[in-house]
Amino acid sequence: MKDRLKQQIDFLVEIDKMKNIYRQTLVLHEDRAENDAEHSWHLAMLVMILSEYSNEPIDVLHVIKMVLIHDIVEIDAGDTYCYDIEGNKTKAEREEKASQRLFGMLPTDQQQELYSLWREFEDKQTPESKFANVVDRIQPITLNYRKDGISWINHGVSSKQVLERNAHVCDGSKELWEYVRDIIDDATKKGMLK
Amino acid sequence: MKDRLKQQIDFLVEIDKMKNIYRQTLVLHEDRAENDAEHSWHLAMLVMILSEYSNEPIDVLHVIKMVLIHDIVEIDAGDTYCYDIEGNKTKAEREEKASQRLFGMLPTDQQQELYSLWREFEDKQTPESKFANVVDRIQPITLNYRKDGISWINHGVSSKQVLERNAHVCDGSKELWEYVRDIIDDATKKGMLK
Repeated sequence: MKDRLKQQIDFLVEIDKMKNIYRQTLVLHEDRAENDAEHSWHLAMLVMILSEYSNEPIDVLHVIKMVLIHDIVEIDAGDTYCYDIEGNKTKAEREEKASQRLFGMLPTDQQQELYSLWREFEDKQTPESKFANVVDRIQPITLNYRKDGISWINHGVSSKQVLERNAHVCDGSKELWEYVRDIIDDATKKGMLK
Repeated sequence: MKDRLKQQIDFLVEIDKMKNIYRQTLVLHEDRAENDAEHSWHLAMLVMILSEYSNEPIDVLHVIKMVLIHDIVEIDAGDTYCYDIEGNKTKAEREEKASQRLFGMLPTDQQQELYSLWREFEDKQTPESKFANVVDRIQPITLNYRKDGISWINHGVSSKQVLERNAHVCDGSKELWEYVRDIIDDATKKGMLK
């Protein structure tokens, strides 16, 4: 096998570990946590179906690539729950190191492409990364809400925390921000959020 | 919530069931079957990294969309193992019915888009669907091979069966067909295939 293909296959085998990184969100129809591979697939589907709600015109392929790869760094850095204050202090450093090792398995051109997509996602500056961050927030909110707020209740999360943590949804999509606010209002009424 | 957005969210919630459809392939680092959501994410990654090996120029976004949605019909129709002769006799009918119900949850324009992507994948006629079918074959072959051929051994699969079932890989990618043949040769030598 040629070196280039071997590097690519080794990377594709390494990222099988995404199937073993468990998040705080539960899947709807089994009593277990969702993993990063499932989450990333679901986000790509949200982009496909909901891209019309982006505030600005977006390159859909670019957004899909971003959500497909945005959690690969968690293979080394682990999942950091978005309401975990301590964990979030060291997240950037752990993930930067992980990005070097994991994307570094690829040929240089593809390493650069994936690293740059990941940084763009984290920096939330372009229309594409703003929308990628919208779907990354509304997917767990939707699942949690449909699962009686179980993850919010287990972690004692308040409506104020959810509002603050997700305010940037509005930068990517005003219409989906309305959707999030409706869920937060209803979840608060029903006691899923403090 | 507007009707259109409600339909879209209901569909995105319904397809959470992809996380509960288990395949014959095992994940590499846990002792359990891979599910359709994980499989579909992995295929999209293969398209992103390996598209340069397509025999013909392809629209990468189109191929990624195809692999993201190609197994959604299995929510109703179930997974049919590719070496299951009886199951494959009724597969087309079961999946057609499933496609009507599942894609039918979406607004008409998106229902048509997803149905047409799924049919294109199944028909293996366009350069995009040929390449989508390449990654759909080489992903389980790669995982199986790296997991000591466990699924082939459990089902008593022969090298002749794998060669015949995967011959169409050559239509989508001559270089990846070489890769498949090398794996089959080595797996046969090592007793993973009869």
